[in-house]
Amino acid sequence: MPRLRQRLSTPRRTESFSDAVFAISATLLVLDLGVPRDHYLTRILADWPGFVAYLAAFLTIASIWLHHHTLFSRIRRIDAGIVVANLGLLLGVALLPWPTALVAASLRDGDRSDQIVGVAAYGIVSLIVAASWAVLSGRLSRRPDLLQSPADELWMRTNFHTVLWTTLPVLAAVPLAVAAPVGSLGLFLAVPIVFFIISTRPTEYETDGA
Amino acid sequence: MPRLRQRLSTPRRTESFSDAVFAISATLLVLDLGVPRDHYLTRILADWPGFVAYLAAFLTIASIWLHHHTLFSRIRRIDAGIVVANLGLLLGVALLPWPTALVAASLRDGDRSDQIVGVAAYGIVSLIVAASWAVLSGRLSRRPDLLQSPADELWMRTNFHTVLWTTLPVLAAVPLAVAAPVGSLGLFLAVPIVFFIISTRPTEYETDGA
Amino acid sequence: MPRLRQRLSTPRRTESFSDAVFAISATLLVLDLGVPRDHYLTRILADWPGFVAYLAAFLTIASIWLHHHTLFSRIRRIDAGIVVANLGLLLGVALLPWPTALVAASLRDGDRSDQIVGVAAYGIVSLIVAASWAVLSGRLSRRPDLLQSPADELWMRTNFHTVLWTTLPVLAAVPLAVAAPVGSLGLFLAVPIVFFIISTRPTEYETDGA
Amino acid sequence: MPRLRQRLSTPRRTESFSDAVFAISATLLVLDLGVPRDHYLTRILADWPGFVAYLAAFLTIASIWLHHHTLFSRIRRIDAGIVVANLGLLLGVALLPWPTALVAASLRDGDRSDQIVGVAAYGIVSLIVAASWAVLSGRLSRRPDLLQSPADELWMRTNFHTVLWTTLPVLAAVPLAVAAPVGSLGLFLAVPIVFFIISTRPTEYETDGA
Repeated sequence: MPRLRQRLSTPRRTESFSDAVFAISATLLVLDLGVPRDHYLTRILADWPGFVAYLAAFLTIASIWLHHHTLFSRIRRIDAGIVVANLGLLLGVALLPWPTALVAASLRDGDRSDQIVGVAAYGIVSLIVAASWAVLSGRLSRRPDLLQSPADELWMRTNFHTVLWTTLPVLAAVPLAVAAPVGSLGLFLAVPIVFFIISTRPTEYETDGA
Repeated sequence: MPRLRQRLSTPRRTESFSDAVFAISATLLVLDLGVPRDHYLTRILADWPGFVAYLAAFLTIASIWLHHHTLFSRIRRIDAGIVVANLGLLLGVALLPWPTALVAASLRDGDRSDQIVGVAAYGIVSLIVAASWAVLSGRLSRRPDLLQSPADELWMRTNFHTVLWTTLPVLAAVPLAVAAPVGSLGLFLAVPIVFFIISTRPTEYETDGA
Repeated sequence: MPRLRQRLSTPRRTESFSDAVFAISATLLVLDLGVPRDHYLTRILADWPGFVAYLAAFLTIASIWLHHHTLFSRIRRIDAGIVVANLGLLLGVALLPWPTALVAASLRDGDRSDQIVGVAAYGIVSLIVAASWAVLSGRLSRRPDLLQSPADELWMRTNFHTVLWTTLPVLAAVPLAVAAPVGSLGLFLAVPIVFFIISTRPTEYETDGA
Repeated sequence: MPRLRQRLSTPRRTESFSDAVFAISATLLVLDLGVPRDHYLTRILADWPGFVAYLAAFLTIASIWLHHHTLFSRIRRIDAGIVVANLGLLLGVALLPWPTALVAASLRDGDRSDQIVGVAAYGIVSLIVAASWAVLSGRLSRRPDLLQSPADELWMRTNFHTVLWTTLPVLAAVPLAVAAPVGSLGLFLAVPIVFFIISTRPTEYETDGA
């Protein structure tokens, strides 16, 4: 696709549009934390799964932003495939407040089957995010011509494997929901935390950097 | 209008303001996906038109962003007419969550006449978007002095015709709503997908690019 | 204040923060357009003041953005006074969805005294906006050292007078609300449209521009 | 962490992502100002604590933005620690609309224990903000290699002490809530105003600047 390689040459507007979607989705999550009618302390404490779901969703979006930042700092040019995979990622991120509300409401008011549906919905949206990351990372690892420097090629391949491995706990969280919905929620909280640690860890082949 | 040609010389702030409106509108759509009170699975599955309407609206905004991106990468300077047509486009995009909610609610709870009203409202907002695109593209196709290079003049004329053709299915969707509201919804989903394919397709006169 | 003159030297982040507030406030307005429970056509048509209020608020924010854009393109450096006046402007813009909802709801369901309160609230928020504009424009018209070129000094003085004149219809709209609430709403719709025309009109002393 | 020092070298995307979160959170606050069903004037006047809470939260976010702006204008490079502390700050800012709604609702409808819970929640979120500021400022005051110029090192140390002192009234506001909830609210309003004055005050060692 020579035209898009030529025209969508710099990722500037894709970065700023993505940042806006990440920021809005992370901030809209707060609307899921409702104001109780009375007995504030009792009701807020009873609503602890809502706060865990909020934190899991916020950290998920924050870790995606951080990783997106690192990834795009290695990209020189983008083509149509990258833009479309990135829009898939944004669809997942923009949807995230919905399953977050669902999980929180089901753990507060719903029965067991509602909780399973809530966690499964969270899992499906997480899989949209994970699949888009995999397509984005996979394409970049095979297209050194889109990257800033030859050293980024190795980084992109390592990154592609990291992304694929991250999909596993998300896949595991969905069947776990049938046995233990709160356990699934814990897994959804753990994934971005581990992702954070991986994203900010120095990697050997770059410690010689300027 | 020499002053605005001179003063609003670079489209930078128009781009970033538009990106913010696109991102917010696409992300606010999630508020239309409600949380059921009980029987999550049954109610969520019964609410499938709400998810189709969400997807149609999200893809519409994503395709507008993509096309806006491609269009503005060919613009060197903007004048007052471009800014006003762009604000019309932003009005349509900012309104979009309202008919999306209307369509989803009417297909879930409303009678046939409500469904027709919902789809017609979606169509009217889509026409605000399409008419603004037509004015924007038409003006740019007649003003080569605002473009980056002479090659962009041919692109702008082709683009103007593409935009005019895209208006047709939107116009067709409104009367179709009287016969088959769900069919109209399918058409609203199809338009951005076709627009995506057109926007990312390489065009002959540019394959010789760098 | 030498420190802020030195440190807050470029208005870049003030521009992008303002653009984000303008874009979010303009897009949040859509949440005021509710989804009726039944009889969509009757209820939507009966809700016409809500759509006029929406349009007035959207055009107000769009005209503020346009004017802000033109104003800031003439600014080279900003100081603390400019930043604080600009934050006052953002407070007014961020508040605007609230009186818009109030006006729309009062014209649909409220009695005459509620309508007067709704329009008065809209007027008070408009005055926060107008007063911040006046402070911002007045300060810039007395500080040529903050402007891009000497020619901008005359523009800033003319602009200061335009802004002061714009305050008059807003002040008139509040007492008018007691006699005719819908008339006030018409005035709130007229102000941004006139402001648009003024903002995009070429001015004599600049027609010799490049 | 050489990799992140190298890769996250410029704070550009961190600035724009933070600005977006600040802008959205400050604008979402308006959703806490509800539309009364009838007797607009009586109900709006009775809801005065909601407006004080709105103003306190808006000014808090505005003062954070202003201080963030000043701080980041002195930063040349960022590392992982800065990014993570900044994400903690954004978590606090994104949460702020929730305790604001809680304080407003409890002062309108709740009993004394609800008011204490509301103000305590506001205090806890304020402490997340204050602690993140302290970590961010502390790290920067010990890392001159991340700053623009050697003069910024003294500024960062002074700033670190200012931030630590600002934590005191926030800590005092929480126990004060038990005795006088409205007094706490006044303190939450005073903190950003004082912070504003400090942020825009010229400091001696810089008055010789260009």
